[in-house]
Amino acid sequence: MLTITRRATAPASLSSLVHRGTLAVLAVLGLSAAPAFADEGMWTYDNPPLKLLKERYGFEPSQAWLDHLRLSSVRINDGGSGSFVSADGLLLTNHHVALGQLSKVSTAERDYVKGGFLAPTRQDEIPCPDLEINVLEVMQDVTARVQAAASAAGDDTSKQLAARKAEIAKIQKETKDSTGRDCQVVTLYQGGEYWLYGYKKFTDVRIAFAPEFQAAFFGGDPDNFTFPRYCVDMTLFRVYENGQPYHPAHYLKWNSAGANADDLVFVSGHPGNTERLSTLAQLELARDVLLPLQLQSLQRRHASLERYAGHGEEQARQANDQIFSIENTVKALTGRLQGLQDAKLMAKKAADEKDFRAKVAAKPEWAQAYGSAWDTIAQAQDKLRSRANESTLWSVGRSGSRLATHAVRIVQYVAEVAKPDGERLPGYHDAELESTRMAMFSPAPIYPEMETALLADWFAFQKENLPAGDPFVAAVLDGKTPEEAARAVVGGSKVGDPEFRKSLVEGGATAVADSKDPFIALARRVDPLLRQMFKWREDEVESKTTAAGEKIGAARFAVYGKSVSPDATFTLRLSYGTVRGYPYNSTLAPPKTTMFGLFERSAQFDDKSPFDLAPRWKAAEKALDLSTPMDFVCTTDIIGGNSGSPVVNRAGELVGLVFDGNIESLVGDYVYDEASNRTVAVHSAGMTEAMVKIYGAGTLVEELLGANRGG
Amino acid sequence: MLTITRRATAPASLSSLVHRGTLAVLAVLGLSAAPAFADEGMWTYDNPPLKLLKERYGFEPSQAWLDHLRLSSVRINDGGSGSFVSADGLLLTNHHVALGQLSKVSTAERDYVKGGFLAPTRQDEIPCPDLEINVLEVMQDVTARVQAAASAAGDDTSKQLAARKAEIAKIQKETKDSTGRDCQVVTLYQGGEYWLYGYKKFTDVRIAFAPEFQAAFFGGDPDNFTFPRYCVDMTLFRVYENGQPYHPAHYLKWNSAGANADDLVFVSGHPGNTERLSTLAQLELARDVLLPLQLQSLQRRHASLERYAGHGEEQARQANDQIFSIENTVKALTGRLQGLQDAKLMAKKAADEKDFRAKVAAKPEWAQAYGSAWDTIAQAQDKLRSRANESTLWSVGRSGSRLATHAVRIVQYVAEVAKPDGERLPGYHDAELESTRMAMFSPAPIYPEMETALLADWFAFQKENLPAGDPFVAAVLDGKTPEEAARAVVGGSKVGDPEFRKSLVEGGATAVADSKDPFIALARRVDPLLRQMFKWREDEVESKTTAAGEKIGAARFAVYGKSVSPDATFTLRLSYGTVRGYPYNSTLAPPKTTMFGLFERSAQFDDKSPFDLAPRWKAAEKALDLSTPMDFVCTTDIIGGNSGSPVVNRAGELVGLVFDGNIESLVGDYVYDEASNRTVAVHSAGMTEAMVKIYGAGTLVEELLGANRGG
Repeated sequence: MLTITRRATAPASLSSLVHRGTLAVLAVLGLSAAPAFADEGMWTYDNPPLKLLKERYGFEPSQAWLDHLRLSSVRINDGGSGSFVSADGLLLTNHHVALGQLSKVSTAERDYVKGGFLAPTRQDEIPCPDLEINVLEVMQDVTARVQAAASAAGDDTSKQLAARKAEIAKIQKETKDSTGRDCQVVTLYQGGEYWLYGYKKFTDVRIAFAPEFQAAFFGGDPDNFTFPRYCVDMTLFRVYENGQPYHPAHYLKWNSAGANADDLVFVSGHPGNTERLSTLAQLELARDVLLPLQLQSLQRRHASLERYAGHGEEQARQANDQIFSIENTVKALTGRLQGLQDAKLMAKKAADEKDFRAKVAAKPEWAQAYGSAWDTIAQAQDKLRSRANESTLWSVGRSGSRLATHAVRIVQYVAEVAKPDGERLPGYHDAELESTRMAMFSPAPIYPEMETALLADWFAFQKENLPAGDPFVAAVLDGKTPEEAARAVVGGSKVGDPEFRKSLVEGGATAVADSKDPFIALARRVDPLLRQMFKWREDEVESKTTAAGEKIGAARFAVYGKSVSPDATFTLRLSYGTVRGYPYNSTLAPPKTTMFGLFERSAQFDDKSPFDLAPRWKAAEKALDLSTPMDFVCTTDIIGGNSGSPVVNRAGELVGLVFDGNIESLVGDYVYDEASNRTVAVHSAGMTEAMVKIYGAGTLVEELLGANRGG
Repeated sequence: MLTITRRATAPASLSSLVHRGTLAVLAVLGLSAAPAFADEGMWTYDNPPLKLLKERYGFEPSQAWLDHLRLSSVRINDGGSGSFVSADGLLLTNHHVALGQLSKVSTAERDYVKGGFLAPTRQDEIPCPDLEINVLEVMQDVTARVQAAASAAGDDTSKQLAARKAEIAKIQKETKDSTGRDCQVVTLYQGGEYWLYGYKKFTDVRIAFAPEFQAAFFGGDPDNFTFPRYCVDMTLFRVYENGQPYHPAHYLKWNSAGANADDLVFVSGHPGNTERLSTLAQLELARDVLLPLQLQSLQRRHASLERYAGHGEEQARQANDQIFSIENTVKALTGRLQGLQDAKLMAKKAADEKDFRAKVAAKPEWAQAYGSAWDTIAQAQDKLRSRANESTLWSVGRSGSRLATHAVRIVQYVAEVAKPDGERLPGYHDAELESTRMAMFSPAPIYPEMETALLADWFAFQKENLPAGDPFVAAVLDGKTPEEAARAVVGGSKVGDPEFRKSLVEGGATAVADSKDPFIALARRVDPLLRQMFKWREDEVESKTTAAGEKIGAARFAVYGKSVSPDATFTLRLSYGTVRGYPYNSTLAPPKTTMFGLFERSAQFDDKSPFDLAPRWKAAEKALDLSTPMDFVCTTDIIGGNSGSPVVNRAGELVGLVFDGNIESLVGDYVYDEASNRTVAVHSAGMTEAMVKIYGAGTLVEELLGANRGG
């Protein structure tokens, strides 16, 4: 599945240790650094690949075509993408993107994850407790302003970094104040460009239809990130504004015939993060240290959740969402790690970097301006390597505990909002506060026993893997055993209550400092250490790599221009490609699957989990046209975050719904290979057939097809 | 597909250059040289793995159980295996094993390959033109006699080789003379043992039922050697004796429920050749030189046939059989080559060989007797390397021309039969003459235009790849261009006529020497060169490797005993294992497929070739129970030659029909890996369902099931 693990605004302690797109720097990486060819590219809408489309496909989209697709596209801040698909605000995304919200509105008695959900009428649509979505309405180049502010700060890279951040916060605040619009300054091309993106934001999003988990995620973890697949991984939300269904000016026409083999198609969505322009030193650190550490901690948490789920059906239901998400992440990271461990791939990257550096070195003014950047980054990676263990394990959020996330956020929030905007930790800038508060006060349920289990295991893991006398371990354990420490903070805490969280935040720094709540006390103990680590990373690693990254970005403009697309940043991008199979298993993976195959895959395993058919599907076998296309693959260049993106045809009609990449696509973090990298999507014909014949969602289908007539 | 390319008795010029089991020598190769574990092993019936079966599966087959399975098993001398399955002599094998015979009895008007065949009554069953089958009735250990003869020849390895061959020919002739039984002395354990195998032979074999090619080989070359599969790769022959259906004392009961996941199953068949005991030096030569050369020449021939087939439907029909066979061989050899190119596999083999040699070196009497054998083989491989190119390209049979095979055979035959039996080329010993004559006088059709195309291209290939002045090139071209030379020999030759071939052989050496037939003249020109190359290889390579192989074989007995099975020799073997899926494509390959999947695979590709459904199948969709198992996989250890082998359950009932190995099994030539090496078999439930509901072969099914009642 192609969600991203955390939204961009997550607090520092939760942010992934793997260097992100905005921190990574440019490198020459084979298919990417040389001018793009094949179907590579996650293009910004200000720079669509018009020339490539004309040359390869004879297709020339108009500006209106591009605007329509952009304004029909939606960012879903749980970590995915979506699109408007009806005049009355129906929003199509993946079931697995909606899964967090579906879990939060489910109970033991009414389990919408297990059973699916269809609102009989619009009045029955269920509001998501804490979902925010964005539509990209405005794009403005602010490169000159940001770069000028950094230049004015002199030669000290720490000061440059601070100046850059301050200027970005200032731009965001000015825009918010003058237009009321939510906005974000996006770093592209490793600082080669800065763009102000203005969003229309919605927070009243309701669930109209979701199939049962087993149909959405048929084949479970084994089939995840593979193809052929047989999933109806869809959910229909409806977006509301002022308590009424929203009527978007732009929404995609539903084409129920769907995509065919060899069709040109487009994906418009929000790829989260790629590392195609990272230097070899960064990739080596990820391969040797960061990814293995991250995998180890995830696998530990997975084991803990599996034990908890083993206690009963209700425990299994509570843990399902996290288990699902971890398995997905582990499989994705493993694929990525395998890509980095591929000697051929690394040799190619090394050769490409050598070539790029040689080109830079050959021109004296380039050599002077940019030549040292690679070594600077390599030195910063060495620094990070020296504290990688602490850097990963000094965290409470990585335990998977929701209470821990809330408690740390409260303690940080009251401190951060007292500072000037430009000096705050990420997630606490004025322009971000509304989103952060929404997450902080979410009514999503918290299960104390699961919290205790997760924390006890995480504390034990920290103790085992950090040296004796480690201050973070001392802060979390507070003189107790891991088990005791977890019981003490969870059992005595009221942080699970949103009203309690609100009262603390309203009471400000004093209320938080005075609180006797044991989880708040824990958060107070770890907060200085989290800040210390954040500052160390900022000073020793990120300020260096950002400055050096900008240099390499500039060198890249000098050598290659804007003929390649920037690394992904969880902002809107356009990809293009062809519906096409690929070589696998010494034979051919097909361009598509059909419903015959769902019954085949189930029969292959005698209907055993995770290949058991959902009962509704089993019952409907005779009613279905089994030759209806179900899922398909295309060469579009995507990555985690693209989950839920629409696939559209030349006419801009919706023909599919991205929900995954094949196993060969996981190395796409570093390199795109058209021969085998494939987007995996639900076919619109399969969605239509299922909604009508399995789910009795004919009214919704009429609404979708009405779009076809009226749109 | 798991046929072998040529029968063991093919003339020297046609024999594969890749060293065969009987020439290869023992080495310690990881999973094989250490006592067998997992489900490894192609066991001779004198040494079944009783201990392993008891330990792993709690199964203790009786001698009667073993005898019944052995005597129900059939060797099919076109290169495969089969089994008796009814009281009236029905013989089950693969469609692709029967394909050569089906082609030979087909014409443009009545194409039984394309359309399939069902004999309405027994009188309508079609006799195969040149098929011989064998049942292994007698096994006798003759090791002492053969080894004594070799020892008596002194220290000269060439003399030892000659003495060994003479003794083997003598044993075979004695047995034939005294019992009338066809027999063969088989070299096992690289000369560690010699066994006299006595066969009951049948030559009146008729075609009772074959499905159409498209159902038997659904998915074509892409899906060949892969799983999941959807093939009904079966044919039913009926065996006759004295013009009447043969009533075998032993035949397998047909179990139409078939195999289930996790069942213990057995395969009884004729694996052709493995190299598990070859030394590292031999594997390196195969990897670096012999396999690439062989692939190159096959790919050239494939291109030539494709061009010919492009001229029209009838040309395509004529070429189909060879194209099919070459594609199969190319995919198999490519898989094998990839196995050898796997650095991990080779490192493991190197480590195992080192360990075995150390064990031998550690005991002075072993070191003295066997220690030098590995170096001897390495030196012989260097010799072969020095003439590998000539050794491959000095051939007319490799062109694929049937005329060339006949012509060379005639020229060699008349010379060889004049010599004492022990001095003849392989294929011309008294005990083999009947089979050789059957092939030589086969009425199978010959297509002159295809012959010309194949020869012209082969002559050109020889000219391009051999040095100027090469005597073989001079002999085949005879001063002409490749195209002219081919036209000259094919156009003016009567070798295509079986009566002409018979008249030459009856005329003996004089008739052959005097013949003005241009193809016979060509064969006369190349014959001395073929003999020269054969002799050179025998003196410089095979005599050394055979003698050294015997030493390593003896060392292996000393170190490991008979706890591993010998390399395959196209003689009867018993394998055992479990019906079980395996990891592939980052998910799970299932233990079985069903008929749902056939329709799925076809729909995935919009019913395009080679994934188009046979029309009969398309029409029967509604009548079929699509959940009927079609194909399945099991861990039994097999290799090329096992095609058509029965799969039986604990009760000794037929539950499946081996027709392939998965792509991961191809490296099985060198190493067996239970994790992913899988036999691919047709499921008996699928065969039954298809015969009844698709082919109207209910009468045959009644006969098969009657076996169930009466057996």
